Amino acid sequence: MIPTGEQPLTTDLNCDMGESFGAYTLGNDEAILPFVTSANIACGYHAGDPLVMQKTVELALQHNVAIGAHPGLPDLVGFGRREMAVSPAEVYAMVVYQVGAMQAFVKAGGAVLHHVKPHGALYNMAAVNPALGRAIAEAMYKICPDAVLYGLAGSELIKAGKAIGLKTASEVFADRTYQQDGTLTSRKQPDALITDPELALKQVIRMIKEGKVRSQQGTDVSIKADTVCIHGDGAHALEFAKYIHETLNKEGIRLKAI
Amino acid sequence: MIPTGEQPLTTDLNCDMGESFGAYTLGNDEAILPFVTSANIACGYHAGDPLVMQKTVELALQHNVAIGAHPGLPDLVGFGRREMAVSPAEVYAMVVYQVGAMQAFVKAGGAVLHHVKPHGALYNMAAVNPALGRAIAEAMYKICPDAVLYGLAGSELIKAGKAIGLKTASEVFADRTYQQDGTLTSRKQPDALITDPELALKQVIRMIKEGKVRSQQGTDVSIKADTVCIHGDGAHALEFAKYIHETLNKEGIRLKAI
Amino acid sequence: MIPTGEQPLTTDLNCDMGESFGAYTLGNDEAILPFVTSANIACGYHAGDPLVMQKTVELALQHNVAIGAHPGLPDLVGFGRREMAVSPAEVYAMVVYQVGAMQAFVKAGGAVLHHVKPHGALYNMAAVNPALGRAIAEAMYKICPDAVLYGLAGSELIKAGKAIGLKTASEVFADRTYQQDGTLTSRKQPDALITDPELALKQVIRMIKEGKVRSQQGTDVSIKADTVCIHGDGAHALEFAKYIHETLNKEGIRLKAI
Amino acid sequence: MIPTGEQPLTTDLNCDMGESFGAYTLGNDEAILPFVTSANIACGYHAGDPLVMQKTVELALQHNVAIGAHPGLPDLVGFGRREMAVSPAEVYAMVVYQVGAMQAFVKAGGAVLHHVKPHGALYNMAAVNPALGRAIAEAMYKICPDAVLYGLAGSELIKAGKAIGLKTASEVFADRTYQQDGTLTSRKQPDALITDPELALKQVIRMIKEGKVRSQQGTDVSIKADTVCIHGDGAHALEFAKYIHETLNKEGIRLKAI
Repeated sequence: MIPTGEQPLTTDLNCDMGESFGAYTLGNDEAILPFVTSANIACGYHAGDPLVMQKTVELALQHNVAIGAHPGLPDLVGFGRREMAVSPAEVYAMVVYQVGAMQAFVKAGGAVLHHVKPHGALYNMAAVNPALGRAIAEAMYKICPDAVLYGLAGSELIKAGKAIGLKTASEVFADRTYQQDGTLTSRKQPDALITDPELALKQVIRMIKEGKVRSQQGTDVSIKADTVCIHGDGAHALEFAKYIHETLNKEGIRLKAI
Repeated sequence: MIPTGEQPLTTDLNCDMGESFGAYTLGNDEAILPFVTSANIACGYHAGDPLVMQKTVELALQHNVAIGAHPGLPDLVGFGRREMAVSPAEVYAMVVYQVGAMQAFVKAGGAVLHHVKPHGALYNMAAVNPALGRAIAEAMYKICPDAVLYGLAGSELIKAGKAIGLKTASEVFADRTYQQDGTLTSRKQPDALITDPELALKQVIRMIKEGKVRSQQGTDVSIKADTVCIHGDGAHALEFAKYIHETLNKEGIRLKAI
Repeated sequence: MIPTGEQPLTTDLNCDMGESFGAYTLGNDEAILPFVTSANIACGYHAGDPLVMQKTVELALQHNVAIGAHPGLPDLVGFGRREMAVSPAEVYAMVVYQVGAMQAFVKAGGAVLHHVKPHGALYNMAAVNPALGRAIAEAMYKICPDAVLYGLAGSELIKAGKAIGLKTASEVFADRTYQQDGTLTSRKQPDALITDPELALKQVIRMIKEGKVRSQQGTDVSIKADTVCIHGDGAHALEFAKYIHETLNKEGIRLKAI
Repeated sequence: MIPTGEQPLTTDLNCDMGESFGAYTLGNDEAILPFVTSANIACGYHAGDPLVMQKTVELALQHNVAIGAHPGLPDLVGFGRREMAVSPAEVYAMVVYQVGAMQAFVKAGGAVLHHVKPHGALYNMAAVNPALGRAIAEAMYKICPDAVLYGLAGSELIKAGKAIGLKTASEVFADRTYQQDGTLTSRKQPDALITDPELALKQVIRMIKEGKVRSQQGTDVSIKADTVCIHGDGAHALEFAKYIHETLNKEGIRLKAI
């Protein structure tokens, strides 16, 4: 029995989507959509093209999944994963451009853009660089002030979003380990990834229920887990999506977009 | 004296703008803006980049010039001038993408998109191919139903816009000659261009006042002249912009956006 | 017993390869390489990137497969399959560029470029447009005069190659049907493809042994079959590669690059 | 009178060229070519396109100017000036690709590639990152072992070139100031540029004659000046090119490519 006034625990499961391009297919969007509550759809800079954006928006709407723009660096061959020395002014403009394009597809589908989550190197740079975080927040404030800014829990991006008055969602990762300062363990480290699904789930559940994660240094770190990122590509992506969906349900954690 | 009930003649002077890219500068937007009433701003496919789009939108707003999106084919090295065998579905999606991106910059500037004019080969193909014309009109209908569709007078594009219920503006060219079927003389022909500014102006004024143009075959052709396109690059672009602006004023033709 | 002076029948099996790009994988090059004798490797315009080119060249060398450059139109999102109104001068330059880049990877691998085969829409346009065929032949003549030009049997491209003095290889397709004028049935027609592997093989064997193909109109057409193109992507590509390899061997047709 | 056995002082004047792209023109190559001895021609990644490459190679040959490849990062909108987190393997492959493409245009023009000079951010990163320097040197060693590697005097790139056995040319800048450790003053500093042509020339002449430059800290620094870079764009580029050409001649410094 839920005591009066107590809210049931909820979380959002988000997944990057729409990363196919022209003749190239990536990920397994249609299969994974039933198990997530929000989709971050690539906007053509690091992945995606107009036809893929249109189709992915339509698929997300069919599955009643909240649609987010997933803007990235202009680096298709590098999939937006290589840091680039972009200025805040460039980031502001490239986010307006990409989010605006995505808003149009969402509008054409009869819906409204729900959130924005930067991709790859842009996400990482904005997590630690206040000026880039502000540039992204300002772009959203200008063109989609009601959308939710998704960013790394504890990041400069989240701070910039709050400062300008945006709704924000602190993101945690099911399959990544954390450092004692609350940052993700770099992918260059051998212990960056949690490959055991059961351990990954335990970490997620504790982050949601207790607001804590055990760092690689063995200490507990406070963490806010508004939304959990799962990956859509890779051999076991679909299985893991099902597994996390079911397990969170069993744990009484309700899945819904922010 | 204007008799009761008679409207003064008006026309719109439009010019392609925002065609710079990265380190490359093209055109002379700031100098030409005082002499035109609407700007067609490139959207990043054939020319333009996010910073250029932002800056050009801001310049247009400062000059109180109506802002249009100028979507093109994905062919930067060819400046969108090479026809490509694109499908209607591809055209629909690339127009949603580019116009959406432009809408975002316009919204960030506190304004509303005024019109859409396809660029170069896309403009030409949509003028004669009903399916491509429809694709563009449908894209506008979905994402900017109140904007005006600029297209070649008498074209399939204008027909498609009217059919779907968009406002349309029939475009004429000051410096291009016409065929007896109302089409432009192909640029491959030696007599495609009118290089004498005075002759160009005479043609424009007659199109506006009488709704007629003398074709290269010597016959008069009916033509609708809601908006007149002038070119922003070339050695004498600025002079001609001033000249047409002043001459139309002298002729009592009021310049204002549609 | 082969009578004195009689040559055993030989043919070349070629396949498009190196069409992956950045994070995107296409085709199954490593599995198919053992069954073909020459590889047409994408050069970065319609597919491929420098790392993919390097890796594919190395794979082809390991399998002792002849390496060809596979230049395409600058249309990554359209995979080089959309015709573009490119000029002969543009085609000349884009072929020099792409083939030159491929030559460098081949040289870095300690080998020499064996052939050039244009891709997709460039292949199709050069088959029927003499000026584009000449542009490709001239580019090869300038930078790789000893390489073999692969083109559609009976095409303008092959004629242009012969005229300039290049070695040429007339290409036939295992899984495409032919018209009575010797051209391929357009992919827009329902009967363009031969889906039954056995029928496809029969057609190939007859083209090699008799120099004839039965057209869709029921007449026999003379055809030169120096090299047979098989496709590397699709569900049954690998099976078909094995099947054609084995069947031609059984028929006493020796497989070797031109 | 030059004493027996003494070599006259010589230097090479190099300039970046071929940086136009499609409809965009940059620089003033044809006017500047008479005053330089080697040209670094863009290869399509940060600037240039196949037609521009072809034309620029032909112009350089007409002026008897040594032709170099000028490979850059894949960042057209940023003109290759934004650092990117590229790996040594990526740099190796992108240099093979671009230099190979340039070699083909040079071969088509009947000449041989003379040198390679990385552009912009790639040049700067390779100056301080030994692994990137090695990647560039290895690419050259594989595909143009007789070409000269141009790099910043004292840089890791020059060291890598020497280590692998390439000819190298230490580059100095006429219009940039130096730090006491021999590096260029960052362009972010207000005193990075020497705007007075006379002072620029004095610095160059001293570097050539004495092998020394006065640093911003007031100390003399040893510097090797095999080649002097001048800039081809900017308002006074042509005047400065003439001025440096004439002044060096007057000083008895012979201008010729390495």
